[in-house]
Amino acid sequence: MPNLELRIDAKRLLARIDALAEIGAIDGGGVCRMALTEEDRQGRECVLNWMHDLGLEVASDAIGNVVAVRPGRKGGNPVTTGSHLDTVATGGRYDGALGVLAGLEVVETLRDNGIETTHPVAVAFFTNEEGARFAPDMMGSMVQQGHIPLEVALESRDRDGKSVRESLPDVVQTIEKNSGDFRARAFLELHVEQGPVLEREGYSVAAVTGVQGISWSEIAIEGVANHAGTTPMALRSDAAFAAASVATFVRDMARDMGGTQVATVGKVDLTPNLVNVIAKRALMTVDLRNTLEEKLSEAEKRLQTYLEQLSRDEGVKISRRSLARFQPVDFDPAVIDRVVGAAEALDLSVKRMPSGAGHDAQAFAPNCPTGMIFVPSVDGISHNVREYTRPEDIEHGANVLLRVMLQLAE
Amino acid sequence: MPNLELRIDAKRLLARIDALAEIGAIDGGGVCRMALTEEDRQGRECVLNWMHDLGLEVASDAIGNVVAVRPGRKGGNPVTTGSHLDTVATGGRYDGALGVLAGLEVVETLRDNGIETTHPVAVAFFTNEEGARFAPDMMGSMVQQGHIPLEVALESRDRDGKSVRESLPDVVQTIEKNSGDFRARAFLELHVEQGPVLEREGYSVAAVTGVQGISWSEIAIEGVANHAGTTPMALRSDAAFAAASVATFVRDMARDMGGTQVATVGKVDLTPNLVNVIAKRALMTVDLRNTLEEKLSEAEKRLQTYLEQLSRDEGVKISRRSLARFQPVDFDPAVIDRVVGAAEALDLSVKRMPSGAGHDAQAFAPNCPTGMIFVPSVDGISHNVREYTRPEDIEHGANVLLRVMLQLAE
Repeated sequence: MPNLELRIDAKRLLARIDALAEIGAIDGGGVCRMALTEEDRQGRECVLNWMHDLGLEVASDAIGNVVAVRPGRKGGNPVTTGSHLDTVATGGRYDGALGVLAGLEVVETLRDNGIETTHPVAVAFFTNEEGARFAPDMMGSMVQQGHIPLEVALESRDRDGKSVRESLPDVVQTIEKNSGDFRARAFLELHVEQGPVLEREGYSVAAVTGVQGISWSEIAIEGVANHAGTTPMALRSDAAFAAASVATFVRDMARDMGGTQVATVGKVDLTPNLVNVIAKRALMTVDLRNTLEEKLSEAEKRLQTYLEQLSRDEGVKISRRSLARFQPVDFDPAVIDRVVGAAEALDLSVKRMPSGAGHDAQAFAPNCPTGMIFVPSVDGISHNVREYTRPEDIEHGANVLLRVMLQLAE
Repeated sequence: MPNLELRIDAKRLLARIDALAEIGAIDGGGVCRMALTEEDRQGRECVLNWMHDLGLEVASDAIGNVVAVRPGRKGGNPVTTGSHLDTVATGGRYDGALGVLAGLEVVETLRDNGIETTHPVAVAFFTNEEGARFAPDMMGSMVQQGHIPLEVALESRDRDGKSVRESLPDVVQTIEKNSGDFRARAFLELHVEQGPVLEREGYSVAAVTGVQGISWSEIAIEGVANHAGTTPMALRSDAAFAAASVATFVRDMARDMGGTQVATVGKVDLTPNLVNVIAKRALMTVDLRNTLEEKLSEAEKRLQTYLEQLSRDEGVKISRRSLARFQPVDFDPAVIDRVVGAAEALDLSVKRMPSGAGHDAQAFAPNCPTGMIFVPSVDGISHNVREYTRPEDIEHGANVLLRVMLQLAE
């Protein structure tokens, strides 16, 4: 039986979060530590030093993922936790960092209490989870767990044309031990929710049930540029109006479908984008998400049917191409139950909920029992310097992580 | 009685249009001759040479407008025609140029036929009608006719901070005679329609009844940036969705109001404009036009009421500021009738219709009997290198101009 009195040291964990946030610190308390930049190099060095200080066996791979293992009584695949160190351009200090540093805190707590686990325990960080510089996101974990070929990832290029392959040598510390195609006995990731649900509903933690499926489309609408004063309403082919209609349609559709369906038009570019010219072109994106593959497909079909109708009604040409498509990921029911059980044992209110964002954990889900723990994001804000999670929530989340890691490693 | 057999020389007029279009010529047959640029200087020089060749008395003023007068048997204010030589950045070869060069063609036809008019006849071109480089549009004619103070116009600056005052000396040829606060006995402008109505309805020319009133608003919508995956639909303050709702509202309103009401959302800028982030800010424009001031005010009020409702419904802050507001302009009923009569006498089908765009003629309307003649724009296209008006329509329009000028100058 795990030691029921065991708790992580919140002060130590928060000090590590603050120390790491100094690297790439930007105004407003945020962090800019984009993948494979000098700031990323410094962040990796900081965390590697902590891993070495804890006496962990550190290994790396060809895409720069790092796995640090604490041996158990038995050998075999470790029970693993971890997340990422990279951020978006104006990111917060918790997204990713919390999962890695809480993993170190779990290991240090085990060490300080002289606890030996049956199975090895590992803490990992994965390259380029955000995808803010190189597409796709979750690159490192997806390569490691066999979902993206290494060569494809190495050839991904940033806006300046620099590839992952060219960027790796300057950033990734040389580590002799190669983790290769690392596999975990189980995987558990602690992360901030990045949404408003836990805070609004008054929960301390979430047992994450899976990750929503994602469908990103780019929609190009071709109308006819014309003078806003001289062209009667009936004689227009207005790409801006058509784009607006798509945006209101997807909103109505999401509300109509209910459940976990969300729909967002976040990007619209009009041409020529002038006050007195009817737009000849609109390039826009539609982001659809649902936890159920069947429902996500239904949303895509309804959107397609609407675009065809709109094209006829408004005399505009509409084309749609997929920018990204991920099926929903279900986490392991036993791991989810363990998270719920651990939270309840700690007297924490816990909600079962899906993740609306992608996470490294989803790369592990097909290969081993996998789960996630969320802690509340104040005002639901993330990918923003104002990202904030209260110290007590960080402590609660890390204690749930400790408890479930211990159970899984027994 | 005017000579009923008199006709302009279409070949000569078209040759001048082609020659002027060489100055600032751009790919696709268009013209870039923006106000007070080197191309504008060359265009002015070309037309000034033609004016001098025709023996006209050329005068200029402090904003660079040029008036070229052919004396009549009596003195006094001339019956004037004209338009502008400047274009938008990717303009056509007819917008503005047609009105100036058709005026020269009228004068040359009178000279070749030895016709002396009772009143003087003048051809003018006005500085910066387009407003594409310096705001406001119709600058030269509005200053000349006393609607904008000269000092205000001279201080208008382009994007690089260069003022009209600084730009004039390099571009405007020194002309000793000063036209000062020139006034016309009557003003008549030939222009391309820049819209699709005449072509669609099969008319050769229009007798323009006035210029629509214009209301331009900039609408700023402040929502909350949030993650597109993690933020449930009910917890969003989505500035992009609100902007789309405004765009569909104004379209529906224009259709509902009917008559000459048009409404356009041509410009929308979202922040941060990313596929997976709910927009925190939308900055958009609404262009409303109507020939009736009462109806235009009604449209503005309906928009304002909608914005207040939307702000409450969507939890976004909305502010609106006026970018431009012009009351509708009515042309002189007698001039309109003369245009209709001249067209009918020439066996041309003629439509009475308002202008949806602003023109130099509207600066004259409060000061003297004023009218306009439109000729069809193929596919309604203007402010575009593809702008095109058929040679026979140019000939017809110029012949109507000739006939009405002769009547007014008798």
